Amino acid sequence: MTDFVALSLAEARQLSISILSGHGLAADHVEAVTETIMAAERDGCASHGLYRLIVCAHTLKSNAVARSAQPRLSDIAPGLVRVDADGGFAPLAHRLGLPVLLAKARTQGIAAMALNNCVHFAALWPDIEPIAVAGLVGLACTPSHAWVAPSGGTEPVFGTNPIAFAWPRSGHPPMVFDFATSATARGEIELYRRQGRAIPDNWAIDAGGAATTDASAALDGAMLTFGGHKGSALALMIELIAGPLIGDLTSLDSIAHDGGRKASPLGGVLILAFDPKTLLGDRANHHLNRAETVFAAITDQGARLPSDRRYAARRRHADGPIMIGRGLYDDLLALAEI
Amino acid sequence: MTDFVALSLAEARQLSISILSGHGLAADHVEAVTETIMAAERDGCASHGLYRLIVCAHTLKSNAVARSAQPRLSDIAPGLVRVDADGGFAPLAHRLGLPVLLAKARTQGIAAMALNNCVHFAALWPDIEPIAVAGLVGLACTPSHAWVAPSGGTEPVFGTNPIAFAWPRSGHPPMVFDFATSATARGEIELYRRQGRAIPDNWAIDAGGAATTDASAALDGAMLTFGGHKGSALALMIELIAGPLIGDLTSLDSIAHDGGRKASPLGGVLILAFDPKTLLGDRANHHLNRAETVFAAITDQGARLPSDRRYAARRRHADGPIMIGRGLYDDLLALAEI
Repeated sequence: MTDFVALSLAEARQLSISILSGHGLAADHVEAVTETIMAAERDGCASHGLYRLIVCAHTLKSNAVARSAQPRLSDIAPGLVRVDADGGFAPLAHRLGLPVLLAKARTQGIAAMALNNCVHFAALWPDIEPIAVAGLVGLACTPSHAWVAPSGGTEPVFGTNPIAFAWPRSGHPPMVFDFATSATARGEIELYRRQGRAIPDNWAIDAGGAATTDASAALDGAMLTFGGHKGSALALMIELIAGPLIGDLTSLDSIAHDGGRKASPLGGVLILAFDPKTLLGDRANHHLNRAETVFAAITDQGARLPSDRRYAARRRHADGPIMIGRGLYDDLLALAEI
Repeated sequence: MTDFVALSLAEARQLSISILSGHGLAADHVEAVTETIMAAERDGCASHGLYRLIVCAHTLKSNAVARSAQPRLSDIAPGLVRVDADGGFAPLAHRLGLPVLLAKARTQGIAAMALNNCVHFAALWPDIEPIAVAGLVGLACTPSHAWVAPSGGTEPVFGTNPIAFAWPRSGHPPMVFDFATSATARGEIELYRRQGRAIPDNWAIDAGGAATTDASAALDGAMLTFGGHKGSALALMIELIAGPLIGDLTSLDSIAHDGGRKASPLGGVLILAFDPKTLLGDRANHHLNRAETVFAAITDQGARLPSDRRYAARRRHADGPIMIGRGLYDDLLALAEI
């Protein structure tokens, strides 16, 4: 039986601020990181919510992130904006670049933003939901640490390499998905290990390359991609377009740079924005409404749209309180008192 | 035992020209379609090679494609080019738009091409390999006919919705992948049905929504996406960005338009191009070479890069002959004599 603690939104936010400030993170980053953490907690994404402060604190203690990083924006081409995050956490760099990305997409029809040299600790959906809230279509992806073997291989090459997509809806929050191209999240395997449970046999292989249901053996071996050779191809694409194409680290580079510190990955994020109004002119609303027919064809047969569960949690949590396990709360309090 | 016929490249090409011309297709389309068919046959993609002429001939006989379509190009924004294929086969429209897409990507950094109102009969890799041959990065996707149920559902909404990606390599042909977001190709299920073989139980469901290994029941029911809810999310993204976002048909629209003719799908193709030189300037070659480290990490452990098998077939077939089954050859000869 798990014992829970109820926190108001203000209390949860203050806990995040105390932990991050206490670990020496500059005030502007504290605010941006806290907003990202709180958005995940509000949406019921436990692994990227308050729990993630443990990962952020560890990354700070390991000196794997620049505490007072100053993001710098470069307007490198009509359709391209780059933000060098200066080795800091990603949210502040994203916040600096987003208005420029949107402005470029509106004039060019399509534009790309490269966030470079940043430490990612969050999901990707918070990076693209605001693109769709602004009426545009967003797409984002990023490598991570090399933990995942390619299809047909046994040695890690790819990160968990997530991809996220956001589509604007009238009278609804955007349709957003965000998934790792690994069969599962690394944190999920760690959770099974802590609980002494067997993992499904298609999540990972052991160090000898054999299928395993042993979570510890999986963490010492290699994770697998979702969807066999197709998921592997997608992971490779993400590795390339959010790595070398934007002049940033691959997942192999990132884990080498980490050097065993087990901090969050360092590298790039590629974010694309398409403006339906530039593409379709006066017919934009007509065609966006046609997308609703596709959504209805999915939900009318009892299937779920990717973001439905997250928005339901958001409605439940609109006014708090946030319930977190006593064990996590105690760990966070200890981090806040350092 | 299958009996084979050896055709020189010139004989194979002439067979394609005879069939397409004999079905009333205008000469410029005959040439462009034949080039696409021959590229697939050369690369060992049997289902999109000479075999596909049976599908093209059926589409022509069904009046589901405009025989003398005149593609029209519109330069709609600095980063966007649209080619209205005028209801014709896609290759001629693609050929018209490609140089404009490349020029836009070189100045803008990223650009998109919408091929609209076209009939697709081919794979997507021939559309993007030339982008990578020109030194850029290419990405393409398209809806098809609604044959595929969303994850958690039982009724078709998505097409087989392929996605393809091309990456330029120095001293190598480009790394290219091209896969359907359905668990398998529809033609593969049809092949199993003709052979009276059971299909794997994760390819499709029957009309009642139950898993099936019966190919006929699968064709009357719904295909499944690859990779569960993640593959389903990807299929939805493709449905949206190469459908409503470019003002074109969804897979549900396309199959309704088909009205039981079983012709090739009608709709749009979205093609993106990124220019590494615009993104990276003088450092472009340095970073493209870093991608080779990722490829080596894959192939050094005995895993395959997505396009390796296709390029091996291309080398084998460089000078012909092409070997095709006697049954297919007889069917093609009959179509050429109509």
